[in-house]
This record gives sequence, structure tokens and C-alpha cells, in this order.
Amino acid sequence: MNLPTPDDVAAAADRIRGVAHRTPVMTSTRLNELLGVEVFLKCENFQRMGAFKFRGAYNALSQFDQTQRESGVVAFSSGNHAQAIALSARILGIRATIVMPTDAPVIKRQATEGYGARVVTYDRAAEDREAIGLALAENEGATLIPPFNHPDIVAGQGTAALELFQDVADLDSVLAPMGGGGLVTGTCLAAQSAAPVTQVFGVEPAAGDDAKRSLDAGRIIQIPTPSTIADGAQTQAMGEVTFALAKQYIAGIETATDDELVTQMAYLASTLKIMVEPTGCLGLAALARKPEAYGKRIGIILSGGNVDMARFVELVGQTA
Amino acid sequence: MNLPTPDDVAAAADRIRGVAHRTPVMTSTRLNELLGVEVFLKCENFQRMGAFKFRGAYNALSQFDQTQRESGVVAFSSGNHAQAIALSARILGIRATIVMPTDAPVIKRQATEGYGARVVTYDRAAEDREAIGLALAENEGATLIPPFNHPDIVAGQGTAALELFQDVADLDSVLAPMGGGGLVTGTCLAAQSAAPVTQVFGVEPAAGDDAKRSLDAGRIIQIPTPSTIADGAQTQAMGEVTFALAKQYIAGIETATDDELVTQMAYLASTLKIMVEPTGCLGLAALARKPEAYGKRIGIILSGGNVDMARFVELVGQTA
Repeated sequence: MNLPTPDDVAAAADRIRGVAHRTPVMTSTRLNELLGVEVFLKCENFQRMGAFKFRGAYNALSQFDQTQRESGVVAFSSGNHAQAIALSARILGIRATIVMPTDAPVIKRQATEGYGARVVTYDRAAEDREAIGLALAENEGATLIPPFNHPDIVAGQGTAALELFQDVADLDSVLAPMGGGGLVTGTCLAAQSAAPVTQVFGVEPAAGDDAKRSLDAGRIIQIPTPSTIADGAQTQAMGEVTFALAKQYIAGIETATDDELVTQMAYLASTLKIMVEPTGCLGLAALARKPEAYGKRIGIILSGGNVDMARFVELVGQTA
Repeated sequence: MNLPTPDDVAAAADRIRGVAHRTPVMTSTRLNELLGVEVFLKCENFQRMGAFKFRGAYNALSQFDQTQRESGVVAFSSGNHAQAIALSARILGIRATIVMPTDAPVIKRQATEGYGARVVTYDRAAEDREAIGLALAENEGATLIPPFNHPDIVAGQGTAALELFQDVADLDSVLAPMGGGGLVTGTCLAAQSAAPVTQVFGVEPAAGDDAKRSLDAGRIIQIPTPSTIADGAQTQAMGEVTFALAKQYIAGIETATDDELVTQMAYLASTLKIMVEPTGCLGLAALARKPEAYGKRIGIILSGGNVDMARFVELVGQTA
């Protein structure tokens, strides 16, 4: 198995420079006072296509050789990876086909099609997206780029934390959302070279804590698709690449409930004036539950901001 | 009458440096493609206390002499000016009393009290806030700082545009929300020195176009409190200072309806991932209506982000 290294994250940072946004790190006196620690929010909701996923996708596609570029790319995704592949493919002049569940958020499907990709839908409950993706790739000679279990994806995702470490010194911990583990393990690799004393925590939805159970068990555990509003972390299992890296580097795995995600989504909107999608609130939700547990200077990766307005209104309206 | 000058804006910029945030200018490829012009969004929703008003308030209060500092400050405001005075007073160690309508947004009243100010309420329909504020000031020897009709307030508000002009060259126009005219006329002064060819437009709620009517008539016209969701621009009349400056410098006045404000509020949240209050959407709403009318490179001042979540959900929920 080919595992990415800290050097691969540095190389990815060179590749995405001037193409991906270098997103801002936001701070809030009120948030710091509320939690009693210093919080640094890495705003990947301001990334191109609205989520960190662009980093990994562009890092992978920009390394395609001429044959791959001509044959196109296939991806399966619940949303943000789809948009990321579609936008990267458009920028690089590569044909993209995205396999997407029929119940994917409208905003994500529209954006994917808006970037010029072909969308093929499947029934999340009845069909296997990997099989569909593989068949499509084989039929067309296209390259399948999975959403997290790929060295180039992991290395690309790590560039968000690398920027955070360059902008903010001496972080005690970083908390990042965890679905398949691409963002979290990329963050671990970035920390290895740029912030070796910083502890990296993954935060997954309480409804689907497969990563925690997998690390506890020492092997990848597969679960049914979890029922959670964190649609970017509705993964059934980690991949071999992300599991191997997590086993080696991760400081711990936390969980957050849907209610906690909604609370943070409303807080970030009303106090910080930023829109963050439910999945993007996982890190802050875990920190808010135990603000004393991660040191004094905490980095939080707000992974994305792609939430339908109707969905936001529905979720936040229950509490507002 | 003592009118502020471009030099006063420069002096205000020195005073607020390191105290106010230098807010970011955001751009969006999708927004530019949609409107067919280049748009530069000055994000005063990320300013301290969530709106540009902090600039003017701090500029005014930081010039208090020792007697004024000891006697305190009084302000009347529908919201953001109140928070701005309260926060500036706290920073400078000055006692603040705020006269606020009983129907002011909860988020704004709570924030004002949270900054340690005393809040005195009045009935917007039945009582005169100016009279209440003046009486309070006289009784206590405090200094009354009005929300817009004051040279130091206008000069302070102009620093937002000054930063915009420093960050973005060759703007054809700037569109800014217009209530009493403090932000717009401050923007005019900033343009005089830093961007003399840039045209400055004020945008007021269609329900309360007193500024447009005043400039057309050549005298200040007073209207009943307009019924609009743009609670930061529910002014009944311009002041002598802002009217004199507007008459001299402003390129034109536009209006936007409540529906247009909601449309832009939802667009900014879903596409730019930022929360902007209804008043803050006035500039973009006017631009979206006639994108070809203001040149090719347009600055938009998003004046604030203080909107109750319940209110946001109610407004955006109607369209989402």
C-alpha cells in the first residue's frame, strides 16, 4: 500500500497554489470567552466550490498523465467530492462523470452539473456506488478517483492544515471533521512536518462512529449508512490508506450529535456571520462539549459551507 | 456647520487602527459571472460587533476629553449604533446609556447589554428618541452621540471605503446602504482623496426613500418611520451634516425592496457563505437589479451581519 507522506502534502501545496484559495483563519473574542480557550477557525467554507475537497481533487487530477486526461475521470460522492472533481476537471480540461445518490442535496447536484460534469444517480439504499463507479470507469477507460481512500486525495486535504500551521503557531490541538478520514489523516501528515507537537483529533457523527470503533478494534469496521445531518460524513467505513495513517498518527476520535451540530451551525451564523454546513461543525461541536480537553490553543477546521438554504432554515428553525 | 473632510477620514483611520478590524474584501467568480461585472464585497459584517458602526463610534468616543470621559455617553439607536457605542465605551472605560426602541432586534439589545451599557427603551410609535436622549444627556452631563449626523461619526464610517480603495484599485462605483447617510457620505469623503473617479451611490429601502426625495427637493424631507426589514435604514430623515455632504458628492440614490433584500441575503448565505443583515444587502440588491448601470468594477459595502437567527429563518424560509 502506497501511503502519502508529509512531503506529499508539501508537494500538493505547490500544485494547488494560485488555483485553490488560501482560506482565512477567523477568530472571535466572544467565542474565546465562551469556551475559555483560544480558537482558530480554518474557514474551508470559503474554499472554491465551498469545501476543502477541492484541494485533494485538484491535487489528484493535476497529476494525471496525457492518457488519463484524455480518458476522463469518474467519481462517486454524496456531494462535495463530486463538485471538487467536477471543478478540478473543468479547470484542467478533463471530462468528468459523477455517480451521486438520488437524495444528494440539491445545491450540491446543481453545482456539480454547473461545473459541466455528467451526473449518474443511484439509490443509496439499494445500489452500490463503488460498483457503479468501477463499471463506468472500466467501460470508458476513465480513472476512478475515490473520495478519500487515495494518497493524492489525502495529501491534498492536508494542505488546509498546513496553511493553518503556517498562519498560527503553537496549536495544542486541531479538531477536524471525520468521514472517511481523508481530511483528518492529511491533517496528521501536515502536523508531522509543520507542527509535530500538535495533537490531531477526528470528529465523526455520533450516529456513525465507525472510525472510533475501527481504531478501537484495530481493523476497519463497516457500518450501515449512518442517519445524520452531517451528509459529508455519512461514510460506512474508512479506507485502507486512511485507516493505516489514522492508526499511526491520530490522537483520538470524538463524536458529535446532530443537535450539537445544529447548535454550532446557528452559533457560527449568528456570531461569526459565516455559513458552515452540518459536517463542517463537527470539530467545534466536540470542542464545545469539552472545551478543557484539548489544551489552550485549538485549531478547528470548518470543512465546508454547502448547505441548502431550505435545509438550513429547517434545521436552525427548530431551535431559533 | 462643521463638515468633515477627507483628512478627517484619514485621521479616523489612524485612530481606529489596531482597534477596529480591517475587514476582508471578498470576491466570487460565480457572482461575477452572474452579474457580468467584477464585484468587490467589503465585509463589514465581520467588523467588531458585526457592523461598520463601530468605526464611527470609536472615532467619536476616542476624541472625548477627560470631562466627557468621566460624564459618560448617551446614544439612541435601532441597534448597531447602540452596540457600537457600547463596545467603544467599554474599550475606552466610558459609561454608556443607550436609548433603544422596544421592538429592536433581540440580538442587538442583548449584545448592547452584553457590552455593559445601560439600555433605556422607548415606544418607537409614540415617543421621540431624540428628546429622550437629550433629556438623559442633560440630566447626567453626558455627551450625546447621534447615529449619523455628526462629523466624527461620518469620518469614522468613511474608513471602511478607504480600506476598500486601498485594497482594490480602479473601482468605477461603490454602492453602500443608506439610512441617515453616515456610511454613504463617509464613503464619498474617502473617495475624494483615495479614488476621485469612483462614483458613490447610496441605496435606501424602497419603503423609505427620504434621501432620494430630499436630494431631489434640495431640502431635508422627513417621512414616517418606514416599514421595511432593513431595520438599520429605518430613518425618518437625513441630518444636516449628511445632507450637505450628499448634496455635494453623491452620484445618485437607488432603492431596493424587501423582497430583493431577502433574495440577496439568501444568495450571500448560500453562495458566499456569509451572513449579512437585510440592511447590509441594499447595495448588492441595487446592483443586481441593474448590473450594467454602474461600470465594470463595483465595490459593495456589506454594512453588517446582525440578524436574529429566528428572523433570518423567517425571511429566507419564505423563499427557500
